[in-house]
Amino acid sequence: MSFTAENWPITAALLQAPNFTKDGVPIQDAEASEWQAVFEEVADAGFSNVDLTDSWVRPADLTPGRLDELKQAAAAAGVGAPVITAIRRSVIDAKDWEANLVYGHRTIEAAAHLGIHTVSFGLHQALTPAQQKQLWFWTVEGYKDPIKDPDAWNNAVTRLRELGRHAADLGILLSLELYEDTYLGSADSAVRLVEDIGLRNVGINPDVGNLIRLHRPIEDWREAFHKVLPYTNYWHVKNYSRDEDVARAYYVAIPAPLEYGLISYREVMREAISVGFQGIICCEHYGGDGLSVSATNQRFLREHILPKREGYETGTSRVAQNPSEI
Amino acid sequence: MSFTAENWPITAALLQAPNFTKDGVPIQDAEASEWQAVFEEVADAGFSNVDLTDSWVRPADLTPGRLDELKQAAAAAGVGAPVITAIRRSVIDAKDWEANLVYGHRTIEAAAHLGIHTVSFGLHQALTPAQQKQLWFWTVEGYKDPIKDPDAWNNAVTRLRELGRHAADLGILLSLELYEDTYLGSADSAVRLVEDIGLRNVGINPDVGNLIRLHRPIEDWREAFHKVLPYTNYWHVKNYSRDEDVARAYYVAIPAPLEYGLISYREVMREAISVGFQGIICCEHYGGDGLSVSATNQRFLREHILPKREGYETGTSRVAQNPSEI
Amino acid sequence: MSFTAENWPITAALLQAPNFTKDGVPIQDAEASEWQAVFEEVADAGFSNVDLTDSWVRPADLTPGRLDELKQAAAAAGVGAPVITAIRRSVIDAKDWEANLVYGHRTIEAAAHLGIHTVSFGLHQALTPAQQKQLWFWTVEGYKDPIKDPDAWNNAVTRLRELGRHAADLGILLSLELYEDTYLGSADSAVRLVEDIGLRNVGINPDVGNLIRLHRPIEDWREAFHKVLPYTNYWHVKNYSRDEDVARAYYVAIPAPLEYGLISYREVMREAISVGFQGIICCEHYGGDGLSVSATNQRFLREHILPKREGYETGTSRVAQNPSEI
Repeated sequence: MSFTAENWPITAALLQAPNFTKDGVPIQDAEASEWQAVFEEVADAGFSNVDLTDSWVRPADLTPGRLDELKQAAAAAGVGAPVITAIRRSVIDAKDWEANLVYGHRTIEAAAHLGIHTVSFGLHQALTPAQQKQLWFWTVEGYKDPIKDPDAWNNAVTRLRELGRHAADLGILLSLELYEDTYLGSADSAVRLVEDIGLRNVGINPDVGNLIRLHRPIEDWREAFHKVLPYTNYWHVKNYSRDEDVARAYYVAIPAPLEYGLISYREVMREAISVGFQGIICCEHYGGDGLSVSATNQRFLREHILPKREGYETGTSRVAQNPSEI
Repeated sequence: MSFTAENWPITAALLQAPNFTKDGVPIQDAEASEWQAVFEEVADAGFSNVDLTDSWVRPADLTPGRLDELKQAAAAAGVGAPVITAIRRSVIDAKDWEANLVYGHRTIEAAAHLGIHTVSFGLHQALTPAQQKQLWFWTVEGYKDPIKDPDAWNNAVTRLRELGRHAADLGILLSLELYEDTYLGSADSAVRLVEDIGLRNVGINPDVGNLIRLHRPIEDWREAFHKVLPYTNYWHVKNYSRDEDVARAYYVAIPAPLEYGLISYREVMREAISVGFQGIICCEHYGGDGLSVSATNQRFLREHILPKREGYETGTSRVAQNPSEI
Repeated sequence: MSFTAENWPITAALLQAPNFTKDGVPIQDAEASEWQAVFEEVADAGFSNVDLTDSWVRPADLTPGRLDELKQAAAAAGVGAPVITAIRRSVIDAKDWEANLVYGHRTIEAAAHLGIHTVSFGLHQALTPAQQKQLWFWTVEGYKDPIKDPDAWNNAVTRLRELGRHAADLGILLSLELYEDTYLGSADSAVRLVEDIGLRNVGINPDVGNLIRLHRPIEDWREAFHKVLPYTNYWHVKNYSRDEDVARAYYVAIPAPLEYGLISYREVMREAISVGFQGIICCEHYGGDGLSVSATNQRFLREHILPKREGYETGTSRVAQNPSEI
């Protein structure tokens, strides 16, 4: 059974959800009714599913009782929560790698508690003070993984493998998000990392949107997707319009709906399916009304891009697409 | 009774309407049938209401008989005309302030004649020759109010108060439009100006779109709205996509539909309602097909942003929201 | 009988269609089933008609039997193919002009074989190596026609007239596409060229989108359209958002849906009709998902821009609008 436009699981990210309640309580510590209000807004925007983006609520830091409340809040709002995205907790962070690794394990356990079978991790680290001052943080350089340091690479491989094994034990797919200047910052490096990890349940989250918005020369999006799609097991979709004037050394990138930006999702979704992709799709959008644009993007995918009928040809992915394949 | 998505009064601006008939007659002096054709186009685009933008026809400069023709032309086209926006007639213009003040009074009288209860004024002055040469006039600096001149500030306060009193006598709300480099050029200054004027019927038109399109560092749109929304009694909504590269000192702003631009109208409309906003909304859009984009924006507001049902919670505005509150 | 929103012939360009089959066969030499798959995708996107863009398959280089296969493939997919766009085969190319002229004649003959009555030519030449390296080829300068060379101008006139006469003999309209830095690179020059050619079946394809995306000062789009619309007999519609900062000498252009870009198609379509335009419209879009945006553009034209009912006023074009007028 393959997914169709009608039933493909598509989530809304919670990038734009508030971090504090009106009364100034951190959303992490808020009443479940506050969570439910956020889930209801997502549901009202037309989503059946939500991505538990941990820049909003961190499942890893909730007690079992509070995790149950989170799940009930989603259920009460009428949305499923099939995936957690954990960000900026690199397992090779010079200072916090141990805490981040433990956090990763707790996230996986929280996922299991919630009945979640996909977790997205990355190697991006905290935004720098300079990044925090920008309109868009990606317009200045941030943290960089040490590209030629075999020990650091090895640490990334072994620690992510450790998380991957934990996830496999619990029937969970682990997806590693493309992000500039990390070991997941180019298609080639991401593929090599996943190959070095070497687990069937560890794949790539091909968030090429992270790469095409940079104010510098970029990898060709078609080639990047071509390399990583065979390893894709979860997918943050977003898009940017882009202009370049190389002679004058300027680069412009503007958040755009999926349909209008630089990446052709028509083209890459077709290729993804042809190499076996059947994972969850998450609609992210930075800037402005992220939820409305995400909802527009979901409609675009279901009406124009995803296969209308079952029985289409799918290739064989290099990674597991669901728990039964782990 | 509060407005809902279905009945909230939303107008189309007439920024893009022609200033001359096909035969070269100024639209101000044209047959009423020419006005009706413009109103019909607005109605055909899905609007029930139009903003009488005075860059098109100046109600202040029509005789009572011609004002009746204007009203009948709108009625014949099936649109209401609940608001006048008067622009570039600053009451502290060094040369023309007296004429502009008189023009303001005449505009208020024309509004009363037309049964209009909202009039928007500003402190922006005529475009400079350099501005007129640009693709977008806001990409070069224009006129600036003398920021540290208490006499000029006082003149602005007393003259706008004089207009405000006249308006109050006739049951009319006066709304002051945010516009860069004037005393209404930042949220703080606009609030101070309205507080200094000190009339219940004088509020702010939070046209933050005017500010976020500038080719220079800008005020945070969230903070700007947070400050001015409690004083908002009418609202020019428009949006821009924006990119910045501070290190290279360049700024890009592109006219965008409400849904796709930098400002989250989902977020600010919710906040506006929470502080009592129940005023008219006017869809403006520069560049290209302003009317089509305005119509798209109206649909976006009604389908996705405005409250679906009555009975929602509204706060108490610091200014009157309709004539009965003056 | 004039066209209405419902039946105006609108085609999708094939700019984004693949040049090779999955198995690496050039699409020119592929099985007709491969062509049919492309036509089916166009049909599924909502188009009844396709533009045979020769950067995809070159009808001029197909045998009569293969031309029949091409026609049958379109018919089997349920789309008409009423027009051929031939590009980058300038008849004044210093080296290849003779081959290009012969190619032009073959294209006209292929059109006749296919029952096609509109063919678009241009004077643009091959992309330079520098252009091929850019994200958008139009961001660096390319080939330029010798502006002050009367012999070259005369060659353009006489050779295009020769093609025009051939086309006229076969009941075909020839349309010359605006393209920067050629004799068709400004409205004035394009009009002069068509006037010098002096044939009723040779008009202009006012692809002003080609001009407004350039990273340099541009002609005013309203004025350009005003000049060329009386000669328009076919129309590549596309749009760009644009920003300029003349003081800093930078220019930004981003591919945009028809509704959102710099050109108001509401305004220019009205003017086109007022000067007699009744030709085919072709939706082109560069970058990203060209077919989806083209489909969005078709919907925009039919729902919001084209006349809803027959009986509207049309002016008299300076060129033939269909074969019966040649």
